Amino acid sequence: MDDCIFCKIVNGGIPSYTVYQDDDTLAFLDINPNTQGHTLVIPKKHAANITDMDDKDIASLFRTVRKVVSGLQAAINPEGFNLVVNHGEVAGQVIHHFHCHVIPRNTGDGIEYNFEGFTPSPEEFQELAGKVAEHIN
Amino acid sequence: MDDCIFCKIVNGGIPSYTVYQDDDTLAFLDINPNTQGHTLVIPKKHAANITDMDDKDIASLFRTVRKVVSGLQAAINPEGFNLVVNHGEVAGQVIHHFHCHVIPRNTGDGIEYNFEGFTPSPEEFQELAGKVAEHIN
Repeated sequence: MDDCIFCKIVNGGIPSYTVYQDDDTLAFLDINPNTQGHTLVIPKKHAANITDMDDKDIASLFRTVRKVVSGLQAAINPEGFNLVVNHGEVAGQVIHHFHCHVIPRNTGDGIEYNFEGFTPSPEEFQELAGKVAEHIN
Repeated sequence: MDDCIFCKIVNGGIPSYTVYQDDDTLAFLDINPNTQGHTLVIPKKHAANITDMDDKDIASLFRTVRKVVSGLQAAINPEGFNLVVNHGEVAGQVIHHFHCHVIPRNTGDGIEYNFEGFTPSPEEFQELAGKVAEHIN
């Protein structure tokens, strides 16, 4: 897409710190990293979200995520990783070209989630599971 | 694995609110959801992390994630989603059987990330990108 910054990175119109690429995917360092080694993995073909990608696109994308995790492990040896995809503005998506954040984690790095859990009743769980299951094929 | 709670869910030893399953994957509601519809997608074959999964496992897993996102969209119509994988205890992994959180998001749901960015120099970026790239094959 003409106005998509990640398509411009794919096409070389905007430079990036590339760590890996293959026919379908590109991995490059996030320009405003949360932690050292924070990398984005994107499909070369424009897609806003995972629901816009076919099985082959998805397989290629997450194969590259696995390669990047292994590469970061070997290169900078963090204690762990968060893999994060933000789908929609409400979820924190800023660039509307699918990207998976690979965020190396270490003790004391200051990253926190604020995910407050709650406790539905068994009936609420059962009703919801049935409703979702009906809509998956 | 005998002592793995998610393997027990796969084997039926512990019940779950299943929303989808196929030969390779299982999707069920998180028992302590962050938001309504919070679902976990796991491989049926035990693997602690994405680096323990082969290309086929990874393709199957994230195909199911896509199906779950589409199913939740159709069933409860959230404004967006976060897809989150915690790899290692430092990253928040509690159960050491790979799971992708599919977390429906809506305005005002109270979920926040605290991801403070920082700004490396171009030289630092270049050095790091080269180092990671060397370790990916």
